[in-house]
Amino acid sequence: MSFTTLASLPPKEIFGGAVRGHYAHLERITIGEVALQANTTIPLHQHPHEQVTYVIAGRFQFTFGAETKVLEPGMAALIPGGVMHGGTTLTACRVIDLFSPVREDYR
Amino acid sequence: MSFTTLASLPPKEIFGGAVRGHYAHLERITIGEVALQANTTIPLHQHPHEQVTYVIAGRFQFTFGAETKVLEPGMAALIPGGVMHGGTTLTACRVIDLFSPVREDYR
Repeated sequence: MSFTTLASLPPKEIFGGAVRGHYAHLERITIGEVALQANTTIPLHQHPHEQVTYVIAGRFQFTFGAETKVLEPGMAALIPGGVMHGGTTLTACRVIDLFSPVREDYR
Repeated sequence: MSFTTLASLPPKEIFGGAVRGHYAHLERITIGEVALQANTTIPLHQHPHEQVTYVIAGRFQFTFGAETKVLEPGMAALIPGGVMHGGTTLTACRVIDLFSPVREDYR
Protein backbone atom coordinates (compact mmCIF):
# COMPACT_ATOMS: atom_id res chain seq x y z
CA MET A 1 0.00 0.00 0.00
CA SER A 2 1.46 3.34 -0.95
CA PHE A 3 -1.42 5.80 -1.42
CA THR A 4 -4.75 5.18 0.24
CA THR A 5 -8.04 6.77 1.16
CA LEU A 6 -8.18 5.75 4.79
CA ALA A 7 -11.98 5.76 5.07
CA SER A 8 -12.18 3.26 2.19
CA LEU A 9 -10.21 0.62 4.08
CA PRO A 10 -12.13 -2.21 5.76
CA PRO A 11 -13.31 -0.98 9.16
CA LYS A 12 -12.07 -2.41 12.42
CA GLU A 13 -14.54 -2.37 15.30
CA ILE A 14 -13.03 -1.36 18.60
CA PHE A 15 -14.40 -0.85 22.09
CA GLY A 16 -17.05 -3.48 21.54
CA GLY A 17 -18.22 -1.95 18.29
CA ALA A 18 -18.80 1.56 19.68
CA VAL A 19 -16.12 2.79 17.33
CA ARG A 20 -15.18 1.83 13.79
CA GLY A 21 -11.77 2.86 12.60
CA HIS A 22 -9.92 2.50 9.32
CA TYR A 23 -6.26 1.71 9.91
CA ALA A 24 -3.13 1.52 7.81
CA HIS A 25 0.31 0.46 8.93
CA LEU A 26 3.95 1.00 8.12
CA GLU A 27 6.70 -0.73 10.10
CA ARG A 28 6.66 1.77 12.95
CA ILE A 29 3.44 3.76 12.54
CA THR A 30 -0.26 2.92 12.58
CA ILE A 31 -2.58 5.65 11.32
CA GLY A 32 -6.33 5.42 11.69
CA GLU A 33 -9.23 7.57 10.62
CA VAL A 34 -12.14 7.25 12.99
CA ALA A 35 -15.65 8.67 12.66
CA LEU A 36 -17.52 8.91 15.95
CA GLN A 37 -21.15 9.74 16.56
CA ALA A 38 -22.05 12.37 19.14
CA ASN A 39 -22.12 11.15 22.76
CA THR A 40 -19.81 8.23 22.10
CA THR A 41 -17.72 7.33 25.14
CA ILE A 42 -14.30 5.74 24.85
CA PRO A 43 -13.68 4.23 28.28
CA LEU A 44 -10.46 5.06 30.04
CA HIS A 45 -7.85 2.59 28.94
CA GLN A 46 -4.13 2.32 28.35
CA HIS A 47 -1.68 0.54 26.09
CA PRO A 48 2.08 0.54 25.77
CA HIS A 49 1.93 2.31 22.39
CA GLU A 50 2.35 6.05 22.14
CA GLN A 51 -0.75 7.68 20.67
CA VAL A 52 -1.62 10.98 19.09
CA THR A 53 -5.28 11.83 18.60
CA TYR A 54 -5.77 14.75 16.20
CA VAL A 55 -9.25 16.19 15.73
CA ILE A 56 -10.24 17.01 12.15
CA ALA A 57 -13.88 17.81 12.85
CA GLY A 58 -16.13 18.01 15.90
CA ARG A 59 -15.67 18.52 19.63
CA PHE A 60 -14.22 15.71 21.73
CA GLN A 61 -13.97 15.94 25.51
CA PHE A 62 -10.77 14.06 26.10
CA THR A 63 -9.08 12.94 29.31
CA PHE A 64 -5.63 11.63 29.84
CA GLY A 65 -3.64 11.44 32.99
CA ALA A 66 -5.13 14.11 35.28
CA GLU A 67 -6.22 16.44 32.48
CA THR A 68 -9.51 16.85 30.67
CA LYS A 69 -9.97 19.19 27.73
CA VAL A 70 -12.44 19.73 24.92
CA LEU A 71 -10.50 19.15 21.72
CA GLU A 72 -11.61 21.10 18.67
CA PRO A 73 -10.38 20.89 15.08
CA GLY A 74 -6.63 21.34 14.85
CA MET A 75 -6.07 20.18 18.43
CA ALA A 76 -4.21 17.06 19.42
CA ALA A 77 -3.65 14.92 22.50
CA LEU A 78 -0.07 13.62 22.78
CA ILE A 79 -0.26 10.49 24.88
CA PRO A 80 2.86 8.67 26.09
CA GLY A 81 2.69 4.89 26.29
CA GLY A 82 1.04 3.46 29.38
CA VAL A 83 -1.01 6.54 30.28
CA MET A 84 -4.75 6.16 30.89
CA HIS A 85 -6.91 8.04 28.40
CA GLY A 86 -10.45 8.19 27.07
CA GLY A 87 -13.26 10.61 26.43
CA THR A 88 -16.70 11.46 25.14
CA THR A 89 -17.64 13.11 21.90
CA LEU A 90 -19.75 16.25 22.35
CA THR A 91 -20.65 16.28 18.66
CA ALA A 92 -20.04 13.91 15.77
CA CYS A 93 -16.28 13.81 15.30
CA ARG A 94 -13.71 12.77 12.77
CA VAL A 95 -10.28 12.13 14.22
CA ILE A 96 -6.91 10.76 13.22
CA ASP A 97 -5.34 8.30 15.67
CA LEU A 98 -1.64 7.55 15.42
CA PHE A 99 0.28 4.87 17.20
CA SER A 100 3.86 3.69 17.52
CA PRO A 101 4.80 0.91 17.71
CA VAL A 102 2.28 -0.51 15.25
CA ARG A 103 -1.05 -1.71 16.67
CA GLU A 104 -0.71 -5.34 15.67
CA ASP A 105 -4.19 -5.86 17.13
CA TYR A 106 -5.65 -3.39 14.59
CA ARG A 107 -4.32 -5.18 11.49
CA MET B 1 3.02 18.93 26.44
CA SER B 2 -0.18 16.96 26.65
CA PHE B 3 -2.87 18.81 24.66
CA THR B 4 -1.89 21.25 21.97
CA THR B 5 -3.18 23.21 19.02
CA LEU B 6 -0.53 22.29 16.50
CA ALA B 7 -0.83 25.47 14.43
CA SER B 8 -0.11 27.56 17.53
CA LEU B 9 3.33 26.00 18.02
CA PRO B 10 6.38 27.96 16.82
CA PRO B 11 6.85 27.27 13.12
CA LYS B 12 9.83 25.45 11.71
CA GLU B 13 10.93 26.46 8.24
CA ILE B 14 11.86 23.57 6.02
CA PHE B 15 12.98 23.24 2.40
CA GLY B 16 14.69 26.62 2.54
CA GLY B 17 11.63 28.37 3.93
CA ALA B 18 9.23 27.16 1.21
CA VAL B 19 7.28 25.35 3.90
CA ARG B 20 6.49 26.20 7.50
CA GLY B 21 5.39 23.36 9.72
CA HIS B 22 4.32 23.14 13.34
CA TYR B 23 5.70 20.01 14.97
CA ALA B 24 5.19 18.17 18.24
CA HIS B 25 7.04 15.13 19.46
CA LEU B 26 6.60 12.12 21.67
CA GLU B 27 9.39 9.55 22.12
CA ARG B 28 8.60 7.66 18.91
CA ILE B 29 6.33 9.95 16.89
CA THR B 30 6.66 13.40 15.36
CA ILE B 31 3.40 14.98 14.17
CA GLY B 32 3.36 18.16 12.14
CA GLU B 33 0.64 20.36 10.72
CA VAL B 34 1.77 22.08 7.57
CA ALA B 35 -0.01 24.77 5.56
CA LEU B 36 1.18 25.06 1.97
CA GLN B 37 0.36 27.68 -0.61
CA ALA B 38 -0.75 26.62 -4.05
CA ASN B 39 2.07 25.70 -6.46
CA THR B 40 4.53 24.91 -3.70
CA THR B 41 7.02 22.25 -4.71
CA ILE B 42 8.65 19.92 -2.21
CA PRO B 43 11.70 18.60 -4.04
CA LEU B 44 12.22 14.86 -4.16
CA HIS B 45 14.12 13.84 -1.05
CA GLN B 46 14.46 10.94 1.34
CA HIS B 47 15.19 10.28 5.00
CA PRO B 48 15.44 7.15 7.10
CA HIS B 49 12.25 7.98 9.00
CA GLU B 50 8.94 6.47 7.97
CA GLN B 51 6.45 9.17 6.98
CA VAL B 52 2.72 9.43 6.53
CA THR B 53 1.35 12.51 4.79
CA TYR B 54 -2.42 12.87 5.32
CA VAL B 55 -4.28 15.59 3.43
CA ILE B 56 -6.86 17.55 5.44
CA ALA B 57 -7.61 20.15 2.79
CA GLY B 58 -6.53 20.87 -0.77
CA ARG B 59 -5.10 18.89 -3.66
CA PHE B 60 -1.49 17.76 -3.51
CA GLN B 61 0.20 16.03 -6.45
CA PHE B 62 2.48 13.65 -4.61
CA THR B 63 5.22 11.34 -5.88
CA PHE B 64 7.01 8.59 -4.12
CA GLY B 65 8.95 5.76 -5.55
CA ALA B 66 7.61 5.28 -9.09
CA GLU B 67 4.08 6.50 -8.31
CA THR B 68 2.46 9.90 -8.66
CA LYS B 69 -1.05 10.65 -7.46
CA VAL B 70 -3.18 13.67 -6.67
CA LEU B 71 -4.03 13.41 -3.00
CA GLU B 72 -7.34 14.89 -1.90
CA PRO B 73 -8.79 15.28 1.60
CA GLY B 74 -8.85 11.97 3.46
CA MET B 75 -6.04 10.50 1.37
CA ALA B 76 -2.64 9.54 2.68
CA ALA B 77 0.78 8.59 1.37
CA LEU B 78 2.44 5.82 3.39
CA ILE B 79 6.16 6.23 2.84
CA PRO B 80 8.68 3.68 4.13
CA GLY B 81 12.01 5.01 5.33
CA GLY B 82 14.58 5.72 2.64
CA VAL B 83 12.14 6.12 -0.25
CA MET B 84 12.35 9.24 -2.43
CA HIS B 85 9.26 11.45 -2.25
CA GLY B 86 8.08 14.95 -2.99
CA GLY B 87 5.34 16.82 -4.79
CA THR B 88 3.59 20.00 -5.80
CA THR B 89 0.45 21.51 -4.34
CA LEU B 90 -2.27 22.12 -6.94
CA THR B 91 -4.21 24.31 -4.49
CA ALA B 92 -3.51 25.66 -1.03
CA CYS B 93 -3.24 22.61 1.23
CA ARG B 94 -3.28 21.70 4.86
CA VAL B 95 -1.63 18.39 5.67
CA ILE B 96 -0.56 16.31 8.62
CA ASP B 97 2.94 14.85 8.40
CA LEU B 98 3.89 12.00 10.70
CA PHE B 99 7.30 10.55 11.27
CA SER B 100 8.86 7.71 13.21
CA PRO B 101 11.46 7.75 14.61
CA VAL B 102 11.22 11.34 15.83
CA ARG B 103 12.56 14.06 13.54
CA GLU B 104 15.24 15.36 15.86
CA ASP B 105 16.04 17.98 13.21
CA TYR B 106 12.49 19.39 13.55
CA ARG B 107 12.67 20.02 17.28
